[in-house]
Amino acid sequence: MESPNGDWIEPGVISCDVLVVGAGLAGLTAARELKSRSPDLKVIVLEAKDRVGGRTCTVDLRAANGKTDRWDLGAQWVGNSQKYILRLLRELQIDTYRQYDEGTKWLQAGSTAIRPFDTQKWSLSFLKQYSLLEACDAAKTLWTLEKLVNTVDVDDIFNTPNAKLFDSLSVEERVRQHTSSRLVRDVLEVATKSIYGIPTKRLSFLYFLYYAKCAGSFENLIETEKNGAQAFKVKGGTEQISQRLATVLASDELFLNTAVTVVDTSDPLGVFVHTADTSAINEAEGTTPSNEKTRFKCRRLILAIPPDECGHLCWVPGLPLHKEQLFNGAPSGNLFKCIITYERAFWREKGFSGEIASTGWTEFSGETMPLVSAFDATTADGNPALVAFLHNEWTERSLEERRTALLRDLARFLGEEANDYIDYRDKDWHLEPFGGGCPVACLPPGNMEAFSHIREPMEPWMVHFSGTETATHWPGYMSGAVQSGLRAAHEVLFHLDHSQVEHRHLKGSIYATDYVFPSAPDNSYTQRAEWSPWPRRILLYSAVALGIYLYSRKYTLSHTARAFRPIERSVIKWWSGYHWP
Amino acid sequence: MESPNGDWIEPGVISCDVLVVGAGLAGLTAARELKSRSPDLKVIVLEAKDRVGGRTCTVDLRAANGKTDRWDLGAQWVGNSQKYILRLLRELQIDTYRQYDEGTKWLQAGSTAIRPFDTQKWSLSFLKQYSLLEACDAAKTLWTLEKLVNTVDVDDIFNTPNAKLFDSLSVEERVRQHTSSRLVRDVLEVATKSIYGIPTKRLSFLYFLYYAKCAGSFENLIETEKNGAQAFKVKGGTEQISQRLATVLASDELFLNTAVTVVDTSDPLGVFVHTADTSAINEAEGTTPSNEKTRFKCRRLILAIPPDECGHLCWVPGLPLHKEQLFNGAPSGNLFKCIITYERAFWREKGFSGEIASTGWTEFSGETMPLVSAFDATTADGNPALVAFLHNEWTERSLEERRTALLRDLARFLGEEANDYIDYRDKDWHLEPFGGGCPVACLPPGNMEAFSHIREPMEPWMVHFSGTETATHWPGYMSGAVQSGLRAAHEVLFHLDHSQVEHRHLKGSIYATDYVFPSAPDNSYTQRAEWSPWPRRILLYSAVALGIYLYSRKYTLSHTARAFRPIERSVIKWWSGYHWP
Repeated sequence: MESPNGDWIEPGVISCDVLVVGAGLAGLTAARELKSRSPDLKVIVLEAKDRVGGRTCTVDLRAANGKTDRWDLGAQWVGNSQKYILRLLRELQIDTYRQYDEGTKWLQAGSTAIRPFDTQKWSLSFLKQYSLLEACDAAKTLWTLEKLVNTVDVDDIFNTPNAKLFDSLSVEERVRQHTSSRLVRDVLEVATKSIYGIPTKRLSFLYFLYYAKCAGSFENLIETEKNGAQAFKVKGGTEQISQRLATVLASDELFLNTAVTVVDTSDPLGVFVHTADTSAINEAEGTTPSNEKTRFKCRRLILAIPPDECGHLCWVPGLPLHKEQLFNGAPSGNLFKCIITYERAFWREKGFSGEIASTGWTEFSGETMPLVSAFDATTADGNPALVAFLHNEWTERSLEERRTALLRDLARFLGEEANDYIDYRDKDWHLEPFGGGCPVACLPPGNMEAFSHIREPMEPWMVHFSGTETATHWPGYMSGAVQSGLRAAHEVLFHLDHSQVEHRHLKGSIYATDYVFPSAPDNSYTQRAEWSPWPRRILLYSAVALGIYLYSRKYTLSHTARAFRPIERSVIKWWSGYHWP
Repeated sequence: MESPNGDWIEPGVISCDVLVVGAGLAGLTAARELKSRSPDLKVIVLEAKDRVGGRTCTVDLRAANGKTDRWDLGAQWVGNSQKYILRLLRELQIDTYRQYDEGTKWLQAGSTAIRPFDTQKWSLSFLKQYSLLEACDAAKTLWTLEKLVNTVDVDDIFNTPNAKLFDSLSVEERVRQHTSSRLVRDVLEVATKSIYGIPTKRLSFLYFLYYAKCAGSFENLIETEKNGAQAFKVKGGTEQISQRLATVLASDELFLNTAVTVVDTSDPLGVFVHTADTSAINEAEGTTPSNEKTRFKCRRLILAIPPDECGHLCWVPGLPLHKEQLFNGAPSGNLFKCIITYERAFWREKGFSGEIASTGWTEFSGETMPLVSAFDATTADGNPALVAFLHNEWTERSLEERRTALLRDLARFLGEEANDYIDYRDKDWHLEPFGGGCPVACLPPGNMEAFSHIREPMEPWMVHFSGTETATHWPGYMSGAVQSGLRAAHEVLFHLDHSQVEHRHLKGSIYATDYVFPSAPDNSYTQRAEWSPWPRRILLYSAVALGIYLYSRKYTLSHTARAFRPIERSVIKWWSGYHWP
């Protein structure tokens, strides 16, 4: 039923112009942008958790000198080139401070030995600490990787050279094929576990390259200096960003504890959304979610939740195949993060930066230590702490076991003082209800074709997709979330209130003026013939040999002839004169 | 609240001993087995669709001579070695009949040319029709594949030699590495699309081998003869199997249109299940699911739904990591199946079996035909028809376009008579609500570690997992579904009514007497060092060369010395006498 001014009137249904699902950075940015550009629009934000902030989470911990301070168990760092989040922080007047990274960094990879390393001068530090082969291999691998990252076409992924080949490879397999030392493979494994929260075997090599390209380079993903992702931290934690964004929403515009269950796009006039009350699930001990159910109707829907959460909804009618394939084939990684606070920053006193990367392997077969990587996490107020990422295998252990093992592991690198902690808190993101992992969706081999359509709104274009996964600049980071929120908001404005659209925010969307529809992997027979290695090699070697032979034989250029004739003769002689005794 | 006889009494909650979710073959077999073994148990089955049968679906189509007959749009075939489904069919007195496969089969692979082939004598028919290289490659590939399939340890997947390596490879990459002709790669691509409904790039090679091993051999998966999966069809269709199984359930024991939304295992006394009414979603045009909601409580829960559907539920508390990783990382394939009925079986008259396999590529670059594979689908009553599987790319087209293109494609193989059809019906399984694809979950590279725990009940072991994916014998087929239903039922009996358990049905479950807890992939440093190809090769070649040299030099065995000395001399001579002109 439509009222004269275009609103829907239906009993028991809350209607609005734009419904945003997910009150993380992406969803709240979208809502804020919509309200500031077009104040007349009625915007409602739904959130299944009992808090805003999505994959950011700031907690209070006991700190040095009996004080308390705030640390991040979710998104934490911002980088120099992450322009979207930096602009937002400026707008909200939230300060940042430098990640401490002076002093020795420790690496346990390639063997069980612990050795210093320097991310700024990988090759040099490897040359000092490891063998020549390992250092050369590391230099070659990183150089090749950056070269490949540079070839990626972010807007049209299958326009990247060898995209089809790279998509059928796991990172592990690609690395196995193109490296010759365990050291390099271990370093890449540890880097992947720290960046994505999953092992290399589960990641498409094409996605790995795409992700690095969106960040500028692979170095940016692992670096704490220059344009590195870990250059700055946010004073007071990152959850406050969402909390401050949420202040623009009135109490009837933000619904917490409201999970979307059904998305019904069968009505050409608007999207119909069913929700369930999740307050009992969000309260730790609650077991009986109430029967209450609110329904919403909107002219445009923005889904600002991870792809796998989109797949958990009931879609009426069924999803197009490429969306279903994406939502069911893009599981989130799982960063298992913990903060340990200390009385003194003892590692700094020893000349260590606090940065550690470790495979977790010891000389005892079968025993794996929990630590993947660690950084200095001392706050802006100078309260010393370390932040560590854990191997996911440790999720099944008890808190006590985990903590003991982690402290023992830290002590391997930083000394026995690591055991004298003040407070400890860890967060296993896969257990967060309605979150489904952190930091980002990780595409397994073979599914990048579906991923290339990730930003495409759904026919008949009333559902728009936001969330850090959909960004073209620093996806998987807070900056990507903000970019995707702005894009989704301007996509919606494009339909509802054309005059307000700023086209630069539509970058990467199908409404961008320079948009190209993503190409599919080329399978046609006109493509360059794929040869498997062995016939190609035999053919190549034979052709070279034949060429040299003919060259020396027919054209008798003096030096070539002189070079090969004795060999030729001796082969003939050997062949004819050779008899078994 | 617990009543004196152990039942729960709670207002608005239906309680039972065993709750089975999913009224497909697995769920209904489990319910039937429980009721027949232990008639006192209260068993309730919930089904989100408005029909029983899961991934079986039988429809009426117009047939020759103005009659109608029934065809299957879902599971269709049974094989000689599929003992579980064959026994069930005997019990239910449902007949089977032979799949017609006499005459010429057509293959379009390796190029755009259409050529006859013979699945019984692959190599021979390839030798006749293709080049020697292609025939040798096919023979070598199939032989190697079967050899690898034989090494798989079904009960303990990571006990298989090279399991870790094979899991990090997509089938496409493995095939690229070990074949030398396009023909073989095309044949495996078409076979994979027909068996799993997805392309080879999305499938873990270890899962591919495991799946074949569970079926006996790879040949069994593609064959219509001997122990092949496509040997027999079921008279009257396969949906009736579930319908007959469901007759053992009273009207208050089977709830259709009831989707599970929340599974709450936080109460140590029983599992609490929330449901939503889905009747409006299941009726084609309905848009407003009712607010009604029933809650169930049970002592044991059996989930007889695909892994990805398990992941769509809201779990309280959160899932263990390996279950979450499995449920979010095992998307279902999508067989896009259609039936075309004809007045006459014109292909038989021409001496063709009706069996076709095709890459869909034509000489026109970019144009892909819809057909993947086709078989004779003439019913037991002799009503002629063809069954065809379509490339998933065609899902976005209109029914009209699809049908026209498919008929044109069939005409390429069988002649122009293919256009004179009587009735046409296709089913795109990914659009089925609460189904999420067909025939089976397809593990992408890297996730087999989570898969190896698929049958493990959940702590504190009140949730059991059934469904064809969990079978150890013919998973992905009806027989696997029946096996998994029997196993789950006996797992539950093991806890509730120990005397009724038949241990042979516990095969593969953790209650089986010969159960081994699955091993994890071995990552320790004590493992055989992994060498990348090039240093290994250089080392090998150098060692061989050095060996030969030393052998000839030091021990001067006459013939070796005689053989190598002239070469050695001429090389030295050439080297010393060589000057640029």
